[in-house]
Amino acid sequence: MGMKSTLSGYPEWLPEDRIVEQQIIKTIQEKFELYGFAPVETRSVEPLAVILSKGETDKEIYTLRRLQAGQEEGNKGIGLHFDLTVPFARYVIENRNGLSFPFRRYQIQKAWRGERPGLGRFREFLQADIDIVDTRPLGIHSDIEIVQVMDEILSSLPIPTTRLHVNNRKLLEGFYLALGIEKTADVLRIVDKMDKIGTDKVLITLVDDLGIAPPIAQNCLCLGAIRTADPADLKKAVNELGMTHPLLEEGLSELCAILEKTALIETSNVIADLSIARGFDYYTGTVCEVKFVDFPKYPTIAAGGRYDNLVSDGKTVLPGMGMSIGITRILGVVLHEGLLTSSRKVPSAVMVALVSEDSREQSEKTARSVRSRGIPCEVFPHPLKYGRQIAYADNKGIPFVWFPDESGKSGGEVRDLRSREQIAADPDTWTPPQADLKIQVIWQPEKMTALLKNKTYVDLENE
Amino acid sequence: MGMKSTLSGYPEWLPEDRIVEQQIIKTIQEKFELYGFAPVETRSVEPLAVILSKGETDKEIYTLRRLQAGQEEGNKGIGLHFDLTVPFARYVIENRNGLSFPFRRYQIQKAWRGERPGLGRFREFLQADIDIVDTRPLGIHSDIEIVQVMDEILSSLPIPTTRLHVNNRKLLEGFYLALGIEKTADVLRIVDKMDKIGTDKVLITLVDDLGIAPPIAQNCLCLGAIRTADPADLKKAVNELGMTHPLLEEGLSELCAILEKTALIETSNVIADLSIARGFDYYTGTVCEVKFVDFPKYPTIAAGGRYDNLVSDGKTVLPGMGMSIGITRILGVVLHEGLLTSSRKVPSAVMVALVSEDSREQSEKTARSVRSRGIPCEVFPHPLKYGRQIAYADNKGIPFVWFPDESGKSGGEVRDLRSREQIAADPDTWTPPQADLKIQVIWQPEKMTALLKNKTYVDLENE
Repeated sequence: MGMKSTLSGYPEWLPEDRIVEQQIIKTIQEKFELYGFAPVETRSVEPLAVILSKGETDKEIYTLRRLQAGQEEGNKGIGLHFDLTVPFARYVIENRNGLSFPFRRYQIQKAWRGERPGLGRFREFLQADIDIVDTRPLGIHSDIEIVQVMDEILSSLPIPTTRLHVNNRKLLEGFYLALGIEKTADVLRIVDKMDKIGTDKVLITLVDDLGIAPPIAQNCLCLGAIRTADPADLKKAVNELGMTHPLLEEGLSELCAILEKTALIETSNVIADLSIARGFDYYTGTVCEVKFVDFPKYPTIAAGGRYDNLVSDGKTVLPGMGMSIGITRILGVVLHEGLLTSSRKVPSAVMVALVSEDSREQSEKTARSVRSRGIPCEVFPHPLKYGRQIAYADNKGIPFVWFPDESGKSGGEVRDLRSREQIAADPDTWTPPQADLKIQVIWQPEKMTALLKNKTYVDLENE
Repeated sequence: MGMKSTLSGYPEWLPEDRIVEQQIIKTIQEKFELYGFAPVETRSVEPLAVILSKGETDKEIYTLRRLQAGQEEGNKGIGLHFDLTVPFARYVIENRNGLSFPFRRYQIQKAWRGERPGLGRFREFLQADIDIVDTRPLGIHSDIEIVQVMDEILSSLPIPTTRLHVNNRKLLEGFYLALGIEKTADVLRIVDKMDKIGTDKVLITLVDDLGIAPPIAQNCLCLGAIRTADPADLKKAVNELGMTHPLLEEGLSELCAILEKTALIETSNVIADLSIARGFDYYTGTVCEVKFVDFPKYPTIAAGGRYDNLVSDGKTVLPGMGMSIGITRILGVVLHEGLLTSSRKVPSAVMVALVSEDSREQSEKTARSVRSRGIPCEVFPHPLKYGRQIAYADNKGIPFVWFPDESGKSGGEVRDLRSREQIAADPDTWTPPQADLKIQVIWQPEKMTALLKNKTYVDLENE
């Protein structure tokens, strides 16, 4: 049976890398919970009508069909979700009576897109989302909170330095309206490609495809070029472009509010970046994207925004704000480049050696004693020469090997495979140092230095 | 936009129930790790060739197709995995050089089957698997370890009492061979349905479909009727049927070894049950199923067995042993019947009230102080009357509400919503009781009593 078969775009990790992923998930989850976000999972599958109701992602969806479905059953019209926001919006509407508002939830789950795999772009990937949805109008403080929580998490994770770029669609739309542009949504979509196709091509597209006069298109680009972390600078730079519109003022004021609040947090790395537009149609105000500071060409590793019209049952509309961390995208650099490694490949802090088939119960008893105090432990299953058993433990990075007393008495000796120290020990009381109890995930600074030197992700050509 | 749309067989929980699920996952995961099993995730998608290579489940598979796939692209032949064992076998072969053996892994992940939804039967469900795969022959001690770990976990979870039923395919096959039956695999498949279709129908099917003489078929049923936790009883009962065959002896001896070892553990609830055969073709020795003792008609909640030929690259074969817990199936009773509830609907131990829009920073500062000591905390976002704010916290089950000092000074008062006690407190030092820090998951004995009285899952008609 030829079982070997890699599938492009579907990442799989070795246990030591999965341990790193688990650690990142745990850190994110704990921070989400510290801010009181409640856990939710939605099913992986949605009716196509729901999936296709928002955004321009229809070409990337995987549809599902039972292999043995009869002709009459046909395509029931279900597919795998491509993000966690649209399923969450559906979930809120469906469970509205069982929830109370404001509803703050986190969701850490896989999503699927059938797009062409590339660097940091996977067909199956893990997302970590937080959102706030309310029955009352959401103030800008909700946007601020989401931005702060995400910025704090990404700053505290052992990953390359990140920066959170924030903008506001009202600001952009108001500016375009002030310029006399009517097709603001089309302009947004084109401006969003700035990062990918460059300013020249954006200018040409605005002029050629939308029929916007060159000086006006140039004005759109000038707005998109503004980048600052200082709210006063931001106001000045926007005002210098000489446009006024109520929507522009509203967006600018919201954006400034975010900058003012985040500036109070010492570790924050938030910047207004007026080139950000985001691809999904459903955003109505704040939009944000997080990038690795040193790898500007690597795709966005977190993103989100304000959506005031997405969560709707056709009668009432609930405003929402949320952001999503692309965990798999982060791992695409962090694991691929070995920036984070785990101290061992298995949870076991101790491996109990097996002297002989006859003394198996003795080894297992030792393991039970060790485990009873919460110390992860396994028994080597074959009575091989000690050298072979030690080699197994060493390969897995297990720090301690326990050698049971060969005369059959309780106790034995425990060996630290790193120092090669071996001491007599009692399985009922011996405890490893705290640092060895759990697997450690370790940042490799020299790998990061090498990466920056090689500029692998710095000069990256985008598709 | 009509977003509301339930899909039968795709369970979704409210946050308070997801919290229960998370707690169950955490308990299982910690126990897996205590025994040194290493974490692995495989992609959700497999080539159909891999999925269909083992077992008789082809009619239940979901195939995937990109919505906008061109005609020329056609069906690439990929589908969602229906269990975690077959993908794991593929993973081991694919990563053989990066792994060292014995390889002990756990995997907690969703799987999908397109079968008709029913009580405890879902189309999307969460499984928790452990397996041991080795390059050397696996001794029965591996079967014993897997059985013990699973029995220990299921006994320690706050769920209805479980019993682990174990059998051995060699025992069955040897017995059938001794009876002169050649089509042993067909007999296994029919005997496996004992639980579903009853002994009479099994007898008729053996006679009518396989052409087995009635007295011989009756003998198969007699074997299948044996149930005992005592190895001496087991040997006696099997020997009394008067059949001998080397394979029968081997299987009996393995099964007795499992009973002997599990009998040493006081809390164990393992029984030899010679009616167990398991549906998948790949099992070669030990087979097991776990049932709720009080709900004999409810489907199996955990299962597995020994597979000596599944993990193969066509040249070498690696023996394996594993079991899988059906977490969603357990939740199908536990959550559906309210047997487990969470102490609150959100992680927050504290909600800080908002006095007015002007004092928002004061409330947020209080929350930051509280969080800095690891206490989950959220700020109520609207400056409503205190009664409304308290009602929100109360609904979510948040135990403490913090009222900032209205004069703007640091500090304020904290109210225990249960005792209604309200005391002056300093946000830099105040700490809730340890029991209130994290969400508690609570077993509801009176719900269990009611369930047993109503016999909901006891007399359940099977399909």
